[in-house]
Amino acid sequence: MDERAALRLLSDELEGAGDDAAVVDGLVVTTDMLHDRTDFPDGTTRYTAGWRAVGASLSDVAAMGAEATAAVAAYAAPTFDRDELLAFVRGASDVCELVDTEYVGGDLDGHDEFTVATTAIGRTDDPVPRSGARPGDVVCVTGTLGRSAAALEYFDRAARRTGDGDDGGTERLLERANDLFQFGPRIAAGRTLAPHATAMMDSSDGLTRSIHQLAEASDCGVAIDSHRIPIDDAVREVADGEDEAFELATTFGEDFELVAALPEDALSAVREGTDVSLSVIGSVRTATDGVTMDGDALVDRGYTHG
Amino acid sequence: MDERAALRLLSDELEGAGDDAAVVDGLVVTTDMLHDRTDFPDGTTRYTAGWRAVGASLSDVAAMGAEATAAVAAYAAPTFDRDELLAFVRGASDVCELVDTEYVGGDLDGHDEFTVATTAIGRTDDPVPRSGARPGDVVCVTGTLGRSAAALEYFDRAARRTGDGDDGGTERLLERANDLFQFGPRIAAGRTLAPHATAMMDSSDGLTRSIHQLAEASDCGVAIDSHRIPIDDAVREVADGEDEAFELATTFGEDFELVAALPEDALSAVREGTDVSLSVIGSVRTATDGVTMDGDALVDRGYTHG
Repeated sequence: MDERAALRLLSDELEGAGDDAAVVDGLVVTTDMLHDRTDFPDGTTRYTAGWRAVGASLSDVAAMGAEATAAVAAYAAPTFDRDELLAFVRGASDVCELVDTEYVGGDLDGHDEFTVATTAIGRTDDPVPRSGARPGDVVCVTGTLGRSAAALEYFDRAARRTGDGDDGGTERLLERANDLFQFGPRIAAGRTLAPHATAMMDSSDGLTRSIHQLAEASDCGVAIDSHRIPIDDAVREVADGEDEAFELATTFGEDFELVAALPEDALSAVREGTDVSLSVIGSVRTATDGVTMDGDALVDRGYTHG
Repeated sequence: MDERAALRLLSDELEGAGDDAAVVDGLVVTTDMLHDRTDFPDGTTRYTAGWRAVGASLSDVAAMGAEATAAVAAYAAPTFDRDELLAFVRGASDVCELVDTEYVGGDLDGHDEFTVATTAIGRTDDPVPRSGARPGDVVCVTGTLGRSAAALEYFDRAARRTGDGDDGGTERLLERANDLFQFGPRIAAGRTLAPHATAMMDSSDGLTRSIHQLAEASDCGVAIDSHRIPIDDAVREVADGEDEAFELATTFGEDFELVAALPEDALSAVREGTDVSLSVIGSVRTATDGVTMDGDALVDRGYTHG
């Protein structure tokens, strides 16, 4: 059974599962596990790892339209280096501070591979599910897409330079990669969208897959205009042409932007309420219209992250 | 830096850390990570793993004197087997049901070693820290100690029988081991103790270490009477004599009982309020008296679990 089938099984089995986060008594709870080999490329600092791991869980809280209450992490590693541990805690604390919540620690654990499990908790009386999009709604995305794909390319370039002599180039590449790998969880934008959004989720599995997931959960179709998708300049810097930049930005994922459906007449209120850019990238259609981009069927591609 | 030093560093760095669970706005949050090789002996069913992993986090909620609100788990494994996954979810759900809370799912993740990260959330307006014990208080422990040590011995015996032919003996050993490995988190007892307890924690690192941790946090001494420590019959079954049974029961840990200090005159009220047995095993002294058992210094031994 692959991860998608297993997730579907769990969503059938557990009432609370199947959305970005579970909701119990107005509390929003979400947990994620990240591993050195698959989630933290060589050159990822522990500060970035702490930021990113906790940020990923906060993004799930944002996707429910909730405010964030607290985050914890279980940190497993073969050895405990003081500087690494403190850097991790500072990254975790800084991303929490950015969204006005508190990093309250967690657990330490000896393990052969650096592994982090994070949990974020939020509150909302009115969680936004993935399942409420209605034909006629517009489909929006916050910010820009492709930062993580660009970061990975910079990590790769730094790794390939190993042994080229110490001219500072590797360090600059890693700084750029780490910077792109840190992101601002869209808690504030999610709070602004929540009263209006009919469906919402984050783009962690890539925009293309997110659109398909939202369409499936809402039993609707979605028509996307490719030229309205906000591509981050960073991914253009590393891509071989506009087509590759577009491909990376829409399928690589891990960008943690919000994808939301809402009535068109709510757009101006949302835009007034947040500093984050909000791009209308398409509209909700009936289920029989399917998921399309520029009129053609959009293939469900993207990475199923853990 | 070993785990204890690393935990001390975190407790200095983070305001919420250093107790069984962090407390934010009346919410209690705790997270743990468990691994196949170190925490789940060969023969541990996925049902038991789900029960035990989630139970360990619920025990931390109990140790704060809180009621449980919800639990989640991130489940990482090399492959996702339908029956294993469902068994895990049922074990996790059953332990939650036992303490009147809800298992709300979590995350799935491909990983080379079976690894589980659990988070439990609780609520209390009046959390019981480890740090409030006062000279004159009695020191109590719930239930009996040594079940997990006994379970481990049964798992070992089953493993040694491999190849002895299928007479059902291995299966019986594994059933016994799995049964002992499932435990009831002391949420209800913790709620009853909370209004009276001056300090509380769980015994997951072994009674001996727990007593030292409580004494250190409360800046006090503790005098223990060895003959009043409640030893589980199961550990007597597997131990080579009473001394070994006592040693296993007090230092092996992972029994998830509550260790609490409270005024002696509160004992009858607590005992009336809970079905769980409560043994007075000693009393709180001044710090200069140190931690003793039967009048001799008690060496700080036990296992620092992750």
